[in-house]
Amino acid sequence: MKIVILGGVAAGAKAAAKARRLLPDAIIDLYTDDTHVSYSACGLAYYIQGNFTDYRTLLVRSPEEFEAQGIHIHLLSKAIKILPESNQVLIQDLKENSAYLTEYDQLVIATGARPVMPPIDNINLKNVFTVRRIEDGIKIREKALQSKHATIIGSGYIGMELLEAFVELGLKVTIVEFAPFVLPVFDNDISKLIQQQLSSISRTRFEILTSELVTELFSNEQGEVVGFKTGTGKEFNTDMVVICTGVKPNVEFAHDAGIALGETGAIKVNKHMRTNIQNIYACGDCAEKTLIIDGSKVWIPLGSTANKEGRIAAINLSGGDEDFDGVLGSAVVRCLSLTMSMTGYTERKAKAAGFQPVSVSVTKNDRVGYMPDVNNITLKLTADKTTGLLLGGQAVGAGDADKRINSLTGALLGRLTVEEFTKNDLTYAPPFSPAIDPLLNAAQLLLEKIKKD
Amino acid sequence: MKIVILGGVAAGAKAAAKARRLLPDAIIDLYTDDTHVSYSACGLAYYIQGNFTDYRTLLVRSPEEFEAQGIHIHLLSKAIKILPESNQVLIQDLKENSAYLTEYDQLVIATGARPVMPPIDNINLKNVFTVRRIEDGIKIREKALQSKHATIIGSGYIGMELLEAFVELGLKVTIVEFAPFVLPVFDNDISKLIQQQLSSISRTRFEILTSELVTELFSNEQGEVVGFKTGTGKEFNTDMVVICTGVKPNVEFAHDAGIALGETGAIKVNKHMRTNIQNIYACGDCAEKTLIIDGSKVWIPLGSTANKEGRIAAINLSGGDEDFDGVLGSAVVRCLSLTMSMTGYTERKAKAAGFQPVSVSVTKNDRVGYMPDVNNITLKLTADKTTGLLLGGQAVGAGDADKRINSLTGALLGRLTVEEFTKNDLTYAPPFSPAIDPLLNAAQLLLEKIKKD
Repeated sequence: MKIVILGGVAAGAKAAAKARRLLPDAIIDLYTDDTHVSYSACGLAYYIQGNFTDYRTLLVRSPEEFEAQGIHIHLLSKAIKILPESNQVLIQDLKENSAYLTEYDQLVIATGARPVMPPIDNINLKNVFTVRRIEDGIKIREKALQSKHATIIGSGYIGMELLEAFVELGLKVTIVEFAPFVLPVFDNDISKLIQQQLSSISRTRFEILTSELVTELFSNEQGEVVGFKTGTGKEFNTDMVVICTGVKPNVEFAHDAGIALGETGAIKVNKHMRTNIQNIYACGDCAEKTLIIDGSKVWIPLGSTANKEGRIAAINLSGGDEDFDGVLGSAVVRCLSLTMSMTGYTERKAKAAGFQPVSVSVTKNDRVGYMPDVNNITLKLTADKTTGLLLGGQAVGAGDADKRINSLTGALLGRLTVEEFTKNDLTYAPPFSPAIDPLLNAAQLLLEKIKKD
Repeated sequence: MKIVILGGVAAGAKAAAKARRLLPDAIIDLYTDDTHVSYSACGLAYYIQGNFTDYRTLLVRSPEEFEAQGIHIHLLSKAIKILPESNQVLIQDLKENSAYLTEYDQLVIATGARPVMPPIDNINLKNVFTVRRIEDGIKIREKALQSKHATIIGSGYIGMELLEAFVELGLKVTIVEFAPFVLPVFDNDISKLIQQQLSSISRTRFEILTSELVTELFSNEQGEVVGFKTGTGKEFNTDMVVICTGVKPNVEFAHDAGIALGETGAIKVNKHMRTNIQNIYACGDCAEKTLIIDGSKVWIPLGSTANKEGRIAAINLSGGDEDFDGVLGSAVVRCLSLTMSMTGYTERKAKAAGFQPVSVSVTKNDRVGYMPDVNNITLKLTADKTTGLLLGGQAVGAGDADKRINSLTGALLGRLTVEEFTKNDLTYAPPFSPAIDPLLNAAQLLLEKIKKD
């Protein structure tokens, strides 16, 4: 049996390692257009920040370790065409600039996602970066260490992590967001609050421009970026620009081969991570996901999910039978002293999905008020009015927001109603929470609101 | 309508406040043999430690605030007999040393628990303390500030909190535990690990004596404790002793009045917090609890539960209809840099309850290994072999153990199987967890163990 894996950051690397354990005699070849394989892309902002100085710390498993297990790693080798009829993939060797065909019995597509480039004049200047791969991180860190001002375009998770990184490195930072508030994946009221809290941390170290587009970059004679212009005509100086305006799945070459895409534009897979074509699996950021809450299709590309999907794909292509039920959309990001976390539906998305969402927000101490390290969190809970089903939560603040969101995921998984959730027994001691946890305060208020309305 | 509440720390104070909101015209009288009402008893160790210096910080609501709401607070007034036939309670005024009868339409018993005194010769010496009430905290802090060595008898939650408090105050500490390991409420393997980790924090600041009893205290001519002797004949010097060998419910006077006790020895209540006698409710540490997992009866006296039960009792005696479904036994305690937390059944208790428990333990980083504040946690998960039902978890270590336990409670509430729980979607970012959370590692291993055995 010959297994070919396309892509090797999280899902592909995990699939290769798991397939190796399950099928000791299989031939396993992993092709990637990247210069590295099996690394923590989620750690790039922390490398840039200098939490560690050797980028190899990001490597989960080296090509040598893979080779020692008989997994053949082909770096700078891009899959450009799949031929399902003949079970072949056309690979372009980016070093030699040549191409060749490789055969497979089972194929795993784990080609991930790539940055979406916004329509900005002069976007191809020097010192304009995206952040996806290890060499992006190396270049950004190198330039940041020589810079005084950095510009971040887009304020999603990665934008927020880079804001922290640059501020910690002592740079002044301008972050530009097209939406009215930062982190627009959250509900507007929560995004607004995040923006207020961020702004109060430091008005001098960074500035946030919202409802603004970058329309043009300016350069010096060396072709290096030195400034930018916004849609409202303002001009700014800067030493470097990082584009964090989102990603899209790398699926075109798969689609060309007849592999079906889902409604989200990512590769359609079943619970076994199988595509519509026999012996071809897809997993990680290139694959569509199912939201556990209601079975709807979503595309939420996250490293934790990629790892799980890679494992499931390997099990099933090896003759096993294990389902991947989907995701809850759980995510967390830190920016300086703030934590922003969510799971399940926001109120906006719940409405768009046809629910009748009812929400409450509470702002409370995250532990007992007399503890020296007490901080605020704001917690928004959303449920469906008709069924009482808990739909999701968002938590932000300097306090322990992440714990509260993780305390919700099990309840979403178990499809609990708000009323059932009010019965939850969370841990209590003064260093960890108030006697009544903010999550239970919020659930109680939400229950009352649902009953009253 | 006249409501009489006996006891006023957490459950009693909460019941009074909630009843006031629901029944604006009721007469509400609260009797307590304590010198204070409505305070955070769980915060005493943090007052002793000096996290704040005014003990009034512990007060949730002052007697004056209660009076302003028309809730009459009778301090130093002990209920000594209930006369259900005539709807009366005999109250002893501890200041005046007199007694009087008071009438009720609805009675709430919230008399809490009291320390169990072990059989130690000379236990009534000066500077021998228990820690339940505000004045205990004041006296212990006062003495600790003048002392060089403190002895703690018993290593449960309170013993652990006091160990931290005394070490932070600069005292040398000896903690004596009868069981083979500290915190014997955890499974033996986990308690052993806690002990090892505690010992590695500081071998010079405190010592842990296990499988040891204190049999006798020694005094000076002023009747102050100056040392103790253990069951194995060893003798130690000390300046003060705190007895933390557990508590028992204050139920004798209720039992005398015909109020039924449950199998645990605490007052038997239904989901409305009603006792077997009409118009008499019980809540807080004096009341028996139901374990949500299997409906069994337990007595786990905790402040968070007391607050909830007080609220439910008030709602139902006011003509409402709200159930208290029970507890999961969720708890957390911090001792110096360590967090110890649990929810649901331990393996030992699951076996005793008739399950066929299967457990796994994993020791993992609590966040990605390259983050500067990464620490270890050890996580033990227990499930029932026959049904696959998740029964409980224990987590300990310098890392974020509390988050993992709170991530389990919703799953226990929803009665998920381990297999269902392996589908959980927890948040991931490097500052918060590894890409695969230790909880999911453990669940996966537990699932494999259940399937294999």
